[in-house]
Amino acid sequence: MSYSIGHSVFRRSFCGALLLVIGSGTQAIGADQKPNFVVIFCDDLGYGDIGPFGHPTIATPNLDRMAREGMRLTQFYAAACVCTPSRAGLMTGRLPIRNGMCHDRRRVLFPDSQGGLPADEITIAELLHGNGYATGCIGKWHLGHLPRYLPTSNGFDSYLGIPYSNDMDRLADSPKGREAFANPKIEYFNVPLMRDQEIVERPADQTTITRRYTEEAVRFIDKNKDRPFFLYFPHSLPHVPLFRSPEFADTSRRGLFGDVVEEIDWSVGQVLDALRERDLDENTLVFFTSDNGPWLIFGEHGGSAGLLKDGKGCTWEGGMREPTLAWWPGKIAAGKTSTALGSTMDLMATVCSLSSTELPADRTLDTHDLSPVLLGRGESTRNSILYYRGTQLMAARLGPWKAHFITQSAYGGGKPETHDPPLLFQLEHDPSERHNVAADHRDVLAEINDLVAKHREGLVVAKSQLGP
Amino acid sequence: MSYSIGHSVFRRSFCGALLLVIGSGTQAIGADQKPNFVVIFCDDLGYGDIGPFGHPTIATPNLDRMAREGMRLTQFYAAACVCTPSRAGLMTGRLPIRNGMCHDRRRVLFPDSQGGLPADEITIAELLHGNGYATGCIGKWHLGHLPRYLPTSNGFDSYLGIPYSNDMDRLADSPKGREAFANPKIEYFNVPLMRDQEIVERPADQTTITRRYTEEAVRFIDKNKDRPFFLYFPHSLPHVPLFRSPEFADTSRRGLFGDVVEEIDWSVGQVLDALRERDLDENTLVFFTSDNGPWLIFGEHGGSAGLLKDGKGCTWEGGMREPTLAWWPGKIAAGKTSTALGSTMDLMATVCSLSSTELPADRTLDTHDLSPVLLGRGESTRNSILYYRGTQLMAARLGPWKAHFITQSAYGGGKPETHDPPLLFQLEHDPSERHNVAADHRDVLAEINDLVAKHREGLVVAKSQLGP
Repeated sequence: MSYSIGHSVFRRSFCGALLLVIGSGTQAIGADQKPNFVVIFCDDLGYGDIGPFGHPTIATPNLDRMAREGMRLTQFYAAACVCTPSRAGLMTGRLPIRNGMCHDRRRVLFPDSQGGLPADEITIAELLHGNGYATGCIGKWHLGHLPRYLPTSNGFDSYLGIPYSNDMDRLADSPKGREAFANPKIEYFNVPLMRDQEIVERPADQTTITRRYTEEAVRFIDKNKDRPFFLYFPHSLPHVPLFRSPEFADTSRRGLFGDVVEEIDWSVGQVLDALRERDLDENTLVFFTSDNGPWLIFGEHGGSAGLLKDGKGCTWEGGMREPTLAWWPGKIAAGKTSTALGSTMDLMATVCSLSSTELPADRTLDTHDLSPVLLGRGESTRNSILYYRGTQLMAARLGPWKAHFITQSAYGGGKPETHDPPLLFQLEHDPSERHNVAADHRDVLAEINDLVAKHREGLVVAKSQLGP
Repeated sequence: MSYSIGHSVFRRSFCGALLLVIGSGTQAIGADQKPNFVVIFCDDLGYGDIGPFGHPTIATPNLDRMAREGMRLTQFYAAACVCTPSRAGLMTGRLPIRNGMCHDRRRVLFPDSQGGLPADEITIAELLHGNGYATGCIGKWHLGHLPRYLPTSNGFDSYLGIPYSNDMDRLADSPKGREAFANPKIEYFNVPLMRDQEIVERPADQTTITRRYTEEAVRFIDKNKDRPFFLYFPHSLPHVPLFRSPEFADTSRRGLFGDVVEEIDWSVGQVLDALRERDLDENTLVFFTSDNGPWLIFGEHGGSAGLLKDGKGCTWEGGMREPTLAWWPGKIAAGKTSTALGSTMDLMATVCSLSSTELPADRTLDTHDLSPVLLGRGESTRNSILYYRGTQLMAARLGPWKAHFITQSAYGGGKPETHDPPLLFQLEHDPSERHNVAADHRDVLAEINDLVAKHREGLVVAKSQLGP
């Protein structure tokens, strides 16, 4: 499958439903006015964990304002239901199965992993950097912690953050099992804080990490205010263990988890203020979302998927649908809600479209330009979502219909259960996946089977990078 | 227990936790500028069924705007988990157990019921009418359909609506069981439309009922624009069977249920516009909420309680916590969220406080003035919620803590299950009632037991009006 983007020429392929269409209909933005992009990416924040998505007691005045001034996207998905493959999908615009960032048993990269995002993968940062953008990554990476896999080897000018999850590298003398999370201490988790390719603090002081990331983000914006920039800002929280700055300690009605989300909300406000104060707001698209659903096994330390079923680690909606906001004053209409299908994989085509950056033409991409949706000019070409758990395709969505071929609860007990015929839900009527309507819609199941068959026909499964 | 409201004198009673305190601290509004009140009350709308409470595909631009311009109340409760007692609580400011509007087996009034709201009960409408207000009721009443129980016998100048639920009076030759709801026809349900005390249409044409109620509401506002008014506007939908005007047919992504809610959203916009166009917006408090949770047994024809557990008919949060908005431009700060505890029973003390109307001093009331919360001047005195199912006290909330003494699923199967010790949930941390923390908080259980003991000590159970 190949594309020649920008000339409105592409070959119709076997993969019709996943076709990327970026044609001459999209706007041309001159090189002298390239927009900036800021992607704020939370870790394990659930669909229901912020005010604009209905949380009753987590106070998110900055995200509320971002929603009032921007767009709420209610059918937007992470590329996968756990951390590493989700981030690989966002960064490359490709399903993780295509780039080795999933595995049939191990779900993410660990400190003992030797792998990472393969060098021949092309990241959003590399594309934008090639088009004159300053690029910065601040936060959790989790696409490989060896030097050749770090952000600065993947198109970013600079990096400050932790290379994998904040619960990793647990020290042998810390409390066992989940006890270490109930009253977490920094010294239990020997996760390093890195600047570019150097460890600058170990264990990272996670108490102040959200504040320090935020200060770094504002510095990055200030430093690059006179040129186009791409800031990828993946918070390491609210993944457990939960930490927050002293100013946010015991301030939320939602308890420790609420404190952490409210500090992230503060951080969002700082970023938007920094843009406004430098008159960059009308030339910057800010995108807010999360990497996967809430980690429910951690009880009150885990978030909420709202009305969606289950959470992180599974392919029920709660595992992959994310609370998503897009903000660009003067470009994105204020206070609107979009039900358009979207994926973190679409950020690549979207930012490339908006910045007149060429997409890679030599590989299969799973990215769709969402700029018509954001700018109120039409629909995107995305009409399907594929739900992988590791290397296994568990479910597929076509339009409002989702078929589950296999279901399995997120973590802990529960074996995979195969469904023949698949379970079928009309997600726009039944977002909580309560009413199986397969018996009444055999025609829809046939269409979804066709979509999956076409996807599989062209699929080249890459060697997994996630082994020990 | 007696009060002498308006003189800041009251006797401290056994019922401390439920004490009503309306003192000299509240504002005085002169008789020449009494505010208007509009209460829009939905039927079976769930906590998660509108945009401001996170529904992904029901488009509610008018309620979104109402939330942006007003206040979202996220811990606001109906007085009961089903229709008749819920409405009795709202209308009288008293728990239904005190006025006979609940029963140990029958859950609501039916067309064969001979009872209704007892004549010695005092309604909000009677209080405001006595203080010079024009009073109108438009919609579903369900507090007795015999003439002596209708709105015009309870303080309302006028009434247009159906006297009980829209699924009642099913004709013998209509499809059996739930089949009549799958593809509902007006002629299956012989429910009358009444004007004042006369039947004007039977069966009521429910297809256009929301539009006609709305036109009547706008006429009521226009007719009374030069004097203070109280409009009680209890929609008969989205209770099943679902109907909507031709303009709303098949327009929602959420299907038939979405069509119905979107027509109610349109109706809200018409009411707010009518107030704005007559320069009444800055002198009118508009309150939007629902009578109980979604009727989940009706599948896609029932709504969603969002992140809350279960729905209509039970005392899990999904049965009684409601999506609530308060709007009063210039008085209620725009775009805020309040987590203050509130109940539909509090509307009585609130409107009386805001209109300098005296509350009844001769009876136990369960109403608390929410005006300090709405006007941003402080807290209300409500710190508890009692959850009745019929005549049975199932659960009690004190501050953020909710103890379940007995649980039972909403409808259909499932016997009551008694819990000793009670189940205990910290609802502000755990709104979905997932993590029972009773073992760690025996002191809280003792406080809640104390609250319940005091409530029971002073309780006079009225003879039920709900028998056949």
